[in-house]
Amino acid sequence: MFHGELLRLIEEKKFAQARERLNECNEVDIAEWLDDFEKDSRALVIFRLLPKEMAADVFSYLSPESQQHIVEGLTDRELAGVIEDLFLDDTVDFLEEMPASIVKRVIATADTQTRAQLNQLLMYPPDSAGSLMTPELMELDGDWTVARALAAVRRQCEDKASISWLYVTDGRRHLVGVVDLRSVLAAPDAQRVDALMEPDVKAVRTHDDQADVAAMFRKYDLLAMPVVDNERRLVGVITIDDVVDVLEEETTEDIYKMAAMTPAERGYMETDVLTLAKNRVLWLVLLMISATFTGFIIARFDAALAANVLLASFIPMLMDTSGNAGSQASVSVIRGITLGEIRFSDLPRVMWKELRVSLLAGMGVAAVNFLRVWLMYGDPVMALVVSLTLVFAIMAAKLVGCALPLLAARVGLDPALMAGPLITTVADPMALLLFFNIAMLLMPGLSG
Amino acid sequence: MFHGELLRLIEEKKFAQARERLNECNEVDIAEWLDDFEKDSRALVIFRLLPKEMAADVFSYLSPESQQHIVEGLTDRELAGVIEDLFLDDTVDFLEEMPASIVKRVIATADTQTRAQLNQLLMYPPDSAGSLMTPELMELDGDWTVARALAAVRRQCEDKASISWLYVTDGRRHLVGVVDLRSVLAAPDAQRVDALMEPDVKAVRTHDDQADVAAMFRKYDLLAMPVVDNERRLVGVITIDDVVDVLEEETTEDIYKMAAMTPAERGYMETDVLTLAKNRVLWLVLLMISATFTGFIIARFDAALAANVLLASFIPMLMDTSGNAGSQASVSVIRGITLGEIRFSDLPRVMWKELRVSLLAGMGVAAVNFLRVWLMYGDPVMALVVSLTLVFAIMAAKLVGCALPLLAARVGLDPALMAGPLITTVADPMALLLFFNIAMLLMPGLSG
Repeated sequence: MFHGELLRLIEEKKFAQARERLNECNEVDIAEWLDDFEKDSRALVIFRLLPKEMAADVFSYLSPESQQHIVEGLTDRELAGVIEDLFLDDTVDFLEEMPASIVKRVIATADTQTRAQLNQLLMYPPDSAGSLMTPELMELDGDWTVARALAAVRRQCEDKASISWLYVTDGRRHLVGVVDLRSVLAAPDAQRVDALMEPDVKAVRTHDDQADVAAMFRKYDLLAMPVVDNERRLVGVITIDDVVDVLEEETTEDIYKMAAMTPAERGYMETDVLTLAKNRVLWLVLLMISATFTGFIIARFDAALAANVLLASFIPMLMDTSGNAGSQASVSVIRGITLGEIRFSDLPRVMWKELRVSLLAGMGVAAVNFLRVWLMYGDPVMALVVSLTLVFAIMAAKLVGCALPLLAARVGLDPALMAGPLITTVADPMALLLFFNIAMLLMPGLSG
Repeated sequence: MFHGELLRLIEEKKFAQARERLNECNEVDIAEWLDDFEKDSRALVIFRLLPKEMAADVFSYLSPESQQHIVEGLTDRELAGVIEDLFLDDTVDFLEEMPASIVKRVIATADTQTRAQLNQLLMYPPDSAGSLMTPELMELDGDWTVARALAAVRRQCEDKASISWLYVTDGRRHLVGVVDLRSVLAAPDAQRVDALMEPDVKAVRTHDDQADVAAMFRKYDLLAMPVVDNERRLVGVITIDDVVDVLEEETTEDIYKMAAMTPAERGYMETDVLTLAKNRVLWLVLLMISATFTGFIIARFDAALAANVLLASFIPMLMDTSGNAGSQASVSVIRGITLGEIRFSDLPRVMWKELRVSLLAGMGVAAVNFLRVWLMYGDPVMALVVSLTLVFAIMAAKLVGCALPLLAARVGLDPALMAGPLITTVADPMALLLFFNIAMLLMPGLSG
């Protein structure tokens, strides 16, 4: 890698050569490298060596800790230079992680227009379209020619966050259409922009939730999307790179909920112990309380357990298997809902599918189990009891497991909550009730 | 929506008006609408009405079922027109879902160059960079001026899958650099392309796995990425829209594995019952067998259970709670590994974190449980036994839960396998061993 050579050049004070070498590197790689220095003062030396056109890019990829460390070492003039080159959405992402003193200093050093825009953007709720967007977009008039539009693009494109799509507005900034840069490039110079424009523009509003924005990007395969205010005036653009981050955040939240945790605001390593414990303990207590109902079933059948102590040793396997079977079905359905593949109206089809899947899977598991119990204990009746329980318990668990996420979504709850841990506490008592009842039916010596 | 009005126009045979109305619609919306017709012949009528420049786009968004139905209704000449307008990566996606007869017909109707390219692309393994890429990229010579480069872009851009990045090659098609279209637009006409070019190009090879490609896109915030062959000759480009689909597939696979299922090739609704059952039953059997070890522990302590039948009723709660605690830790770590946030070298830090989190969470759960058992049964010793078990079992489960995914990754296994279901079968026997041993220690009447 470039690290060793660069450090050597810097130690030998060959700054011009170091700068040249940095110029050939990728901004993300440099940022990753600078992050490793933590509070080492060499990070600042290297950052100052970066060519002006790279510095803002590298800065936007740094961790919040490195950003803070570097900003604290920069003069007001240097800081203003970085802020000026940053896209406003990246500046907002950075400021959202900084202490108030740094936010104040950044806003004070920014020029008047940037300051006004930053104050506006920082007012949007953190998970809204407004907080993801940047006002740096390409805006055209419909009556311009292609030649004039291209001249405008060439003059302004360096300050625009996205130039793949150009937005056509009327005199009062109302969004009236969108043109692909590609169509403009391909068209003859004299063509009018509004002849190329698509009037059916997909746009979001500033207060729309970022999850809805991400869903629109996914559905329409977008690279950029305009944001309008309540009067449909164009106020910003959201670019795909920010949406990829949102999709990832949403997935993390779903996965955390499926494992019975409240999602954290930040990454695992950056979240403190107290917050992690708080995000988990409430779920553990709730699930613990619901699991006690399973305990009541065991207490209710204590006479049967006393009559045949072997029965108790099958309890863990029956609980685990039905819990696993239920969570397989629920997680499949939850993912299908997230991807827009399964809707509430599919409930009958999903249940019919799971009925057949669970019958097949249940019979497979039961067959293996029958042989195992028979061979281990030489007791075909016990083997039959346990295996029949498995078939019915797997079927019941899968039907509940596939139905609960859809029902949750229907009443406005998050389907991800209806995953493994919760399904298990529903599937467990069903499995044990089936077990004791089938045992009493087939083993005449037992009594409830 | 546009549906009712369009159907009316078509029934009244006002085709010109219908076409005009379709022209204003979004391609994704039209495709979604056509999918709802299934095998209805009106889908074909509407498809034929689409303006030529929209037809290929709409086609690329159709479900494989609708694509097949429409292709079967088109003449060879119409089909050739659609294929010509489709980007090659979309054609490959489509062909990968079609029966052999349709693949043959498409390849036969395509022009010579397209046919050669399709045959080449279809040879790459399904999850490789080669199968995601398209050869339709913008290629420049380094010694061109900006004016000449822009003229080339304007002439060729309509047939290129991505024009955000332009690739500079030498005389033998070796990739030597990349230029942002934005820099070309912003530069003066007389500037040379190689003065604007970045020589440190991130590229993948045709046989690289699509998961690695997606990781590169995520890390470097890319919109497009060049693909080279073993001699570093430029052969194609991968665009972000395909990568978003890959990221989603990878997430689905991870989530399925975390719920102890073999991921399906296609969506839940499109996967047949037999495949679903097969993907689930093996895991259920494996986990069932490992759960029987927990049963052996119960059998081992049958004397204690016989002496105090109340003990058995706590088994489900202890098993569920320790399983949930372990899967919380494992899922947090698995997600951290996926996002590149946690590495094997973090193992000591992660374990130290989980030790403290589990102590806090364990004490919280134990406190609630102590009160509940004491109030319900008036037996403070039993309350103490169960609560102490909870603290230690939660700590053990979380430590195992956080360590196993990292160890799995270390030895080259997929960390996602070390999620809830597997952690549960490890945490369960630990919880029961702790329970019986603590009970025998604190309740003098019991004997193992």
